[in-house]
Amino acid sequence: MQVNGTPYRCIWLEADQRSVGIIDQTKLPHSFETVTLRTLHDAIIAISDMLVRGAPLIGATAAYGVCLGLSGLSDKNTDTCLETICASLIAARPTAVNLRWAVERMRSLLINLPPEKRVQAAYQEAARICDEDVQINESIGEHGLQLIQERYAATGDTVHILTHCNAGWLATVDWGTALSPIFKAQQADIPVHVWVDETRPRNQGAHLTAWELASAGIAHHLIVDNSGGHLMQQGKVDLCIVGTDRTTCTGDVCNKIGTYLKALAAADNDIPFYVALPSSTIDWTLEDGAEIPIEERDQEEVLLVSGLSERDEMHQVQQVRIAPEQTRAANPAFDVTPARLVSGLITERGICAPNKESLLSLFPEHRE
Amino acid sequence: MQVNGTPYRCIWLEADQRSVGIIDQTKLPHSFETVTLRTLHDAIIAISDMLVRGAPLIGATAAYGVCLGLSGLSDKNTDTCLETICASLIAARPTAVNLRWAVERMRSLLINLPPEKRVQAAYQEAARICDEDVQINESIGEHGLQLIQERYAATGDTVHILTHCNAGWLATVDWGTALSPIFKAQQADIPVHVWVDETRPRNQGAHLTAWELASAGIAHHLIVDNSGGHLMQQGKVDLCIVGTDRTTCTGDVCNKIGTYLKALAAADNDIPFYVALPSSTIDWTLEDGAEIPIEERDQEEVLLVSGLSERDEMHQVQQVRIAPEQTRAANPAFDVTPARLVSGLITERGICAPNKESLLSLFPEHRE
Repeated sequence: MQVNGTPYRCIWLEADQRSVGIIDQTKLPHSFETVTLRTLHDAIIAISDMLVRGAPLIGATAAYGVCLGLSGLSDKNTDTCLETICASLIAARPTAVNLRWAVERMRSLLINLPPEKRVQAAYQEAARICDEDVQINESIGEHGLQLIQERYAATGDTVHILTHCNAGWLATVDWGTALSPIFKAQQADIPVHVWVDETRPRNQGAHLTAWELASAGIAHHLIVDNSGGHLMQQGKVDLCIVGTDRTTCTGDVCNKIGTYLKALAAADNDIPFYVALPSSTIDWTLEDGAEIPIEERDQEEVLLVSGLSERDEMHQVQQVRIAPEQTRAANPAFDVTPARLVSGLITERGICAPNKESLLSLFPEHRE
Repeated sequence: MQVNGTPYRCIWLEADQRSVGIIDQTKLPHSFETVTLRTLHDAIIAISDMLVRGAPLIGATAAYGVCLGLSGLSDKNTDTCLETICASLIAARPTAVNLRWAVERMRSLLINLPPEKRVQAAYQEAARICDEDVQINESIGEHGLQLIQERYAATGDTVHILTHCNAGWLATVDWGTALSPIFKAQQADIPVHVWVDETRPRNQGAHLTAWELASAGIAHHLIVDNSGGHLMQQGKVDLCIVGTDRTTCTGDVCNKIGTYLKALAAADNDIPFYVALPSSTIDWTLEDGAEIPIEERDQEEVLLVSGLSERDEMHQVQQVRIAPEQTRAANPAFDVTPARLVSGLITERGICAPNKESLLSLFPEHRE
């Protein structure tokens, strides 16, 4: 996607062909800054401190993290080193299955190569993961576009889409998952308007989704996470599309905290609720979403809100404390939306019902 | 309730027996400040700018607003003046039925008195409204306490209660509605723990409910509005109690935006969802909650978040902008939870099912 006229992906190999560039997403929407990752540690911090976030981008960053880890080893490039690098990356965020998927893909390829060939092969594979992600997300966009087209064909009116968190191009290498159909709709000249959940506590909706849509010139309104149910009751939402960090092979969807509440409201108001995902997000080993470990993050994410100071000339990004000094907070980062509340899954191979048989019909290679 | 050892109500007659004191709730939790209302305009601004908020307290403030309006008239105390004063107060917040109820109670009493007796009678009636509110809320607390006691008797364990927005003593003259049973449980030595929804956009949970609970020494955690559903799925919520700004005689509950989402989650997880309300909040003229006008407030409430600066020595309350400059916001302030999602209504005369017949059995004076 373009940023101020320059095409960007969310992750790229720098000119030295060794270090890795990313957009520091903690600085958006108030400032667009890039950061260079030079070590395994840089990659782990970029993931755990959420300079990069979004399941597919976490996976891509972890793949390059393996590269940085291996290239930093110089001469002691043993299998144990590779395993240690992989384990430390997987530990950076417990919920995202793409992280595990990408690292495992790197590990299983590299472990079978002689140590001296691993660095070069790692960089090639990480680049392949990125290119594939772009293709996959564009396919998701094309499949999801059909849902928007159908609605537009039926009403001839602007299609109002609600999304939660950020599953835009910033969550991936490019295009995004949940927002990819919306970018495609814009290209197809279908009038769309997006209700953007701010997505407390980290406000990825307000910071990232709103920024993506504003940058692309797509009509949108920011809303608090409390508003979606009311807007659905009022008939102001035609379609919900969200992303996911991990989806079980039975269609239970783990996504940013609060997704479940919107899915309940969509079901209560007969509004289609779709989840857009690359198949790397599917956990073929899990049948029950309740088994997904839910990351409990630092309470300061709830107690402090970050934004641009409104005071006089300062206009700097800063944090304000919203609660009394004595108050503690709980901060579960994800919830699980049961498959019964999901209308369908938008994958790179098409849209399917949220159940194992439908998923396997699109991805037969996962049949035993 | 006590604040730093001094007993306070949320509204009181000042020593001059004419002006009216309130707590400026926009300054909490970071600063406890009182404000003196001297004119009708002061009262209207206090209501519309939410220095006072909460349905019962808005009603009490409006009653004193009538007093201030009449006492400011000097010699032209006509019926038209009284009607104008009442209409301007009712216009200050469109959703709260207590506002209309309190103003109508004042108007219907005063219109039948000779003009020269109206000022004194108005102050007497406003004081009576306040005293009654305190009694009513204490009764709500005693009835609601039974629900907490029953749960505690069944499990012998801490009772975990989720609440949305602020329906504590700051929302009333004293005691509160939804929090009144919790204060009563504390007095009865029942261990309780409260999940406090922060309640975006104005963060009344983070600012007011957390402050009330912290001041009273009641165990609580602040959570983002997105978290309640997940906590319910995890079995971490025993009971939900919220307040309401207007409830139809059929049991549809209009309350702070986001209440509907929590009620959906409670129903989906078989968790009791109760609404605490003084009967003045019941709109006996409305059968369908969908007819309640929903106030759309300024988008800046969504785009800006207020809190205590974390920067160096400043530690002042300030606002930060959370979205890109170009992004606009929508800000509906309330939603309607249909009666089918409500387990019961906790009133000053007892707990009843959310339907007309049950309400009329408690309040038979409203039968035609």
